[in-house]
Amino acid sequence: MSKIKLGIIGYGNLGKGVEEQLQFNTDIELIGVFSRRDPKTVSASCPVFHMDDLVGMKKDLDVVLLCGGSATDIPEQAPVLQEHFTTVNAYDNHAAIPAHFNSLDEIARRQKNVAIVATGWDPGLFSLNRLIAEAILPKGETYTFWGKGVSQGHSDAIRRVAGVKRGVQYTIPNEALIQKIRDGKEVVYTKTASHKRVCYVVADEGADEAAITHTISTMKDYFADYETEVHFIDEATFDRDHSGIPHGGHVLRRGYTGEDTQAVYELNVNLGSNPGFTAAVMVAYARAAFRLAREGNYGAKSVFDVAPSYLSPKTPEELRKELL
Amino acid sequence: MSKIKLGIIGYGNLGKGVEEQLQFNTDIELIGVFSRRDPKTVSASCPVFHMDDLVGMKKDLDVVLLCGGSATDIPEQAPVLQEHFTTVNAYDNHAAIPAHFNSLDEIARRQKNVAIVATGWDPGLFSLNRLIAEAILPKGETYTFWGKGVSQGHSDAIRRVAGVKRGVQYTIPNEALIQKIRDGKEVVYTKTASHKRVCYVVADEGADEAAITHTISTMKDYFADYETEVHFIDEATFDRDHSGIPHGGHVLRRGYTGEDTQAVYELNVNLGSNPGFTAAVMVAYARAAFRLAREGNYGAKSVFDVAPSYLSPKTPEELRKELL
Repeated sequence: MSKIKLGIIGYGNLGKGVEEQLQFNTDIELIGVFSRRDPKTVSASCPVFHMDDLVGMKKDLDVVLLCGGSATDIPEQAPVLQEHFTTVNAYDNHAAIPAHFNSLDEIARRQKNVAIVATGWDPGLFSLNRLIAEAILPKGETYTFWGKGVSQGHSDAIRRVAGVKRGVQYTIPNEALIQKIRDGKEVVYTKTASHKRVCYVVADEGADEAAITHTISTMKDYFADYETEVHFIDEATFDRDHSGIPHGGHVLRRGYTGEDTQAVYELNVNLGSNPGFTAAVMVAYARAAFRLAREGNYGAKSVFDVAPSYLSPKTPEELRKELL
Repeated sequence: MSKIKLGIIGYGNLGKGVEEQLQFNTDIELIGVFSRRDPKTVSASCPVFHMDDLVGMKKDLDVVLLCGGSATDIPEQAPVLQEHFTTVNAYDNHAAIPAHFNSLDEIARRQKNVAIVATGWDPGLFSLNRLIAEAILPKGETYTFWGKGVSQGHSDAIRRVAGVKRGVQYTIPNEALIQKIRDGKEVVYTKTASHKRVCYVVADEGADEAAITHTISTMKDYFADYETEVHFIDEATFDRDHSGIPHGGHVLRRGYTGEDTQAVYELNVNLGSNPGFTAAVMVAYARAAFRLAREGNYGAKSVFDVAPSYLSPKTPEELRKELL
């Protein structure tokens, strides 16, 4: 069987993550990375092309993975590339996903290709489990917790505070609250009470640590409503303990299967690398996108629309024999 | 929109569980229970019919749920009923599922209906998560743990021991081993070391408790290879603490998203009622079976073949807005 020919669009943490996954996915061939930078300045273990050459290589690519940022890259690139390619993205602007989906759906149906949007883990796998848990337990409540993990947005925010040389913020879920849900207890879930924010900061020499802590803890929208801890560490400790991009989280649903009979459904992921895992999910959906396109099942899809068997390289017979 | 018209075949714990779910699923109408017993002797909150009347009511039923046992009922009934109905079952004889699937697939394609087989939680939801976790993390290991929960087969076995008046057996997973996997450690998983078996027994008056414990602990296939505990309790305690049929379990996959970067994927369910939850899963797949049949997507399916959106009564637009 010929391999699925894949292109990576954008070569930041996510694009590099996709490249790394291909050592584990032998049914996929990486044709190359496409970057807005001069290819000569990009060092990768696969061929690097300029974005301007992408459309010309249309015939060499079955699926392209959009690995740019959700703030501006994906909204700009996705509609343009969808005119030519089957695409997969991990667009994570929850509120904007429905409009994004509709816009790609129109193009994909017209161009007879496929777009799988908002893969990754949240949105993505977590969404999938919210749907499954709710469909099985219609009477119940779903709770999502994030962490322990690095929040890029909050880390950026603390790095903008005067006197902060290096900084990282971890979102930590309220384990006591999670345990209550596991135990079938009623809980009050608010985003702010359900998570705390722990910051590690390397201060500039002579900076006022108390002032930094105050500025961070009172920052509106980011920290003011949360339990916030600020720890000052030296740069060597920062480099040793805080260079990774771990993340994770929990989806829980507590529901009823009878008048007084409860069931708790729980999905947890614990990720050494957030972009690495997001990339791994995207690669599985790239396989699905390729197959859907080959079957003529065109249009935009989310994780809700893809039968799980499409994610695996195994045949339906193998799946039934080995995993059912 | 007209409701999905459902029939329950067999009225034991599972059939009663399905009946209970319908209070939570307002898009489904329960037409009746079909039993081999005299309908006059069956007390249910819906109409009860004799099995002999089932085929004659073909036009009144969109989907029938096979709620008999996997040992003999399902293998006998499924091929016969598939000639007339779209069916859903929770057939759980893992080794026999592939042949069962193929036999129903042939009938369903010929009769232009749908069979969704082996729903429930294991096989079923657990299978689904084994597939998803493996597709995302191809380099890794998957582990399944069952419990804490009542094993019917093992409970039956201890009730056959001389001197045992009442008895129940709980399968308990090895939590220390689960924690090691969560922590990303290498583990040796064997079924016998991964679970222990805890029995609660009410002995006949004057029975030799030491002899009962010995007979249970040395019972081949059932207990001999496991760490086994036998506790003797009085009948009132048994009635108070051991009348439910709780169960649960864990699917874990520890895998790699980079050379040295791990991710752990974990699904847990904690079920107040094993048949209640199995029934809840079957009802969600009944909705899917109805829709697949309406779309002309005939044949046998497993949980691997059903796009998650088919499980929910919500529209695709609602799902994307509320859950993605």
